[in-house]
Amino acid sequence: MVEITRLEPKEKTGLVVVITGHGKGKTTTALGIAVRACGHNIGTCIIQFMKGDIYAGEWDGIKKMDCPVELISTGKGFCGIQGNPYPYEEHKENAQDALQITHQKIESGRWDILILDEINNALHLKLVDLDQVLEIIRTKPREMHLVLTGRDAHPEVVELADTVSEVCEVKHAYQKEIEPQPGIDY
Amino acid sequence: MVEITRLEPKEKTGLVVVITGHGKGKTTTALGIAVRACGHNIGTCIIQFMKGDIYAGEWDGIKKMDCPVELISTGKGFCGIQGNPYPYEEHKENAQDALQITHQKIESGRWDILILDEINNALHLKLVDLDQVLEIIRTKPREMHLVLTGRDAHPEVVELADTVSEVCEVKHAYQKEIEPQPGIDY
Repeated sequence: MVEITRLEPKEKTGLVVVITGHGKGKTTTALGIAVRACGHNIGTCIIQFMKGDIYAGEWDGIKKMDCPVELISTGKGFCGIQGNPYPYEEHKENAQDALQITHQKIESGRWDILILDEINNALHLKLVDLDQVLEIIRTKPREMHLVLTGRDAHPEVVELADTVSEVCEVKHAYQKEIEPQPGIDY
Repeated sequence: MVEITRLEPKEKTGLVVVITGHGKGKTTTALGIAVRACGHNIGTCIIQFMKGDIYAGEWDGIKKMDCPVELISTGKGFCGIQGNPYPYEEHKENAQDALQITHQKIESGRWDILILDEINNALHLKLVDLDQVLEIIRTKPREMHLVLTGRDAHPEVVELADTVSEVCEVKHAYQKEIEPQPGIDY
């Protein structure tokens, strides 16, 4: 038999977590945080920047979780990549709308964890400004965890963060011309 | 308005995915795969090696998901780390039990995705043998996805995998002596 330890921090500290890098697993990590939080009855809100044009399993997966969790997709796909038909200005408008939603969600006081999925990438593409992101980090409620995902995280965001992981691509199935698979890739 | 594309691979290919590295986010990625799969009604079974001595939110989080998903913790914590009181032989026995469960789950035919959480680490610590892991990879059903997480993935496992991400630690809150926080760290 094994004795189960239950950790309990003496102090509740709202962390700033950055998940960046070019490998597979950044958004997936964000979704996993929601599962872990769910077990603790901790509420998680995920706002996806630049996503919304390709169906992803998490849109329905999150709805099937019996706990306080919400996922909002605000975008029209990855700005500037081949095949994306929407103009830069439209992507920028969507990202600015996502920031507004971010502030509303923070002000609501309902969420213990706020995940801004792909915001690093949105910042890198100048769909949002550095000052806008730094303001969110600096003014967030002290106990609220803030998770920022997406490749090419800005050095000043990394500087302010408590925990930063870089997900590096060692290899990926697309290099063998294997198509994206549901459940794993989307 | 945005038109939503629904991808559908011409061929269903069971991928071998390895999530390794010393950074935060490997088990979390595994949990996120379950959320994504859930939206597609794809069944996910997670077998955790070397875990079971410290309560983790995912144990209850997974139970709150309304889809075919299962999580089994088989271990007694990280073998060899400071404070873990169980002898090596006991950890090894647990890991061998976990392999037996793995084979049962594969033979059941019930699972589209099988996640072996921390198996890379268990192999590195010689709680399981390389041949045992390679056998699972080589004989798994063609359409079943197999995900192997844990630091220090074996080069032969990486060689056989389709997608490999290395999660590197840029920094971590414990370096600032912030205690582990529920929802984020466990």
